Amino acid sequence: MLNEKFFDKFAEDLHDYLPTLSIDCVILGYKNEELHVLVLRLKDKKSWMLPGGFVKKDEDLDEAAIRILKTRTELNILFLKQLHVFGKKNRRDIKALLQQLEISNVKDEIKNWFEQRFISVAYLALVNPESFTPMPDYMSDSIKWIPINKIPKLLFDHNEMITHAKDYIDIQLKYQPIGLSLLPEKFTMKTLQKLYEVVLDRALDRANFQKKILKLDFLIRHKKQMSGGAHRAPYLYSFNKIKYQEFLERGIGFLS
Amino acid sequence: MLNEKFFDKFAEDLHDYLPTLSIDCVILGYKNEELHVLVLRLKDKKSWMLPGGFVKKDEDLDEAAIRILKTRTELNILFLKQLHVFGKKNRRDIKALLQQLEISNVKDEIKNWFEQRFISVAYLALVNPESFTPMPDYMSDSIKWIPINKIPKLLFDHNEMITHAKDYIDIQLKYQPIGLSLLPEKFTMKTLQKLYEVVLDRALDRANFQKKILKLDFLIRHKKQMSGGAHRAPYLYSFNKIKYQEFLERGIGFLS
Repeated sequence: MLNEKFFDKFAEDLHDYLPTLSIDCVILGYKNEELHVLVLRLKDKKSWMLPGGFVKKDEDLDEAAIRILKTRTELNILFLKQLHVFGKKNRRDIKALLQQLEISNVKDEIKNWFEQRFISVAYLALVNPESFTPMPDYMSDSIKWIPINKIPKLLFDHNEMITHAKDYIDIQLKYQPIGLSLLPEKFTMKTLQKLYEVVLDRALDRANFQKKILKLDFLIRHKKQMSGGAHRAPYLYSFNKIKYQEFLERGIGFLS
Repeated sequence: MLNEKFFDKFAEDLHDYLPTLSIDCVILGYKNEELHVLVLRLKDKKSWMLPGGFVKKDEDLDEAAIRILKTRTELNILFLKQLHVFGKKNRRDIKALLQQLEISNVKDEIKNWFEQRFISVAYLALVNPESFTPMPDYMSDSIKWIPINKIPKLLFDHNEMITHAKDYIDIQLKYQPIGLSLLPEKFTMKTLQKLYEVVLDRALDRANFQKKILKLDFLIRHKKQMSGGAHRAPYLYSFNKIKYQEFLERGIGFLS
């Protein structure tokens, strides 16, 4: 059973929101050598969904996305981008959901709100999973990082949203090294290669990868700490942000 | 003065549309060695805007875009894609527009409709400008192809939508040859190079361009017609669509 007090407040706030339009967030983080997605488990303990929300009448669409993300991630966002608008007319099987959630016995205006047709703008956010503790929302009792290849069936078209995010990251890594937003400040060549392998879903030759990525000339190799046995530790790298930016603008297409 | 009959019909149809949400179309075509955008001139003879419309309650978002495009272009669409959602809260200075268009003396429900806050999904369509005669709509007295670098100040944030489209095409041509959708079935190397020069806004070396694009191996070179003086005519090329598709999937990033 959902929090009744929450719904009393929500009924008051309804008039502040634009009708018809929702936001869903694919929040991606890289940990344990896998891409993970942040998903909520609803209070019925059966349904999983992406974090989302609605757009206030007096805020920009992007502001709404940031507000919604803030409540889940304390706003440790490394990269944020509109992904795609999901607008199929039957994208939400809302009756089943309302039953599952026992929303059927709340006020009519709340039921009517959820029974609207919603068109949803999906946002992609990249975060560092170590930098905050994610928080569930009023409809959920749990929020979890799940590896992108092990996502259960989610509500509505939310699996499709994750597929879109995966395709986007995939293309980015093929054409532009988006790794900047997914890695810690300093990282080893092995970690960088692993990120590419995970996203591209195939093994890469170590020597060849190192040669190609160094040739792009946007990595800084740091001096090894010479204390103790550290000379046997691998080199650490970080991104030269100015060169990285120049690189993105120049492109790596066949004409450059 | 606008067509009153149109507005009587529109008032009847209003209930068929989702509130709050509109669609605007950046329709691009390549002719006279320049990228052109299709724009409407409103009946006040001063304001220019992109073709657009609303989403019916019983149609998918993408279906709505196709319906709207169909009424302007007879649906000769080579490429269609959601571009971006424009959702700033003050993106439309609607009062000024209603005055200009003398909509102020139509029914209240129509005024109320236009005075809503609209969030607009911009679509990008590529078309062959030779393949159809564009048609103006109920609010406009003229529809024209205007070179992308000579677009006047348009209504609302429509110039920003064109900038987005330009950036998208720009990135596509850098990373993926989108030319397939912008060129006629057969074209000369000079035409292809010109397209790249126009979009990238810089001159390219002829020999180098030819060498690089042929190396990508998705062009078919056609035999010259040997009749008359035609042996002095330039070679004609077309895209090998299977290889072109493979190429897009493989990517031309640094790992391929």
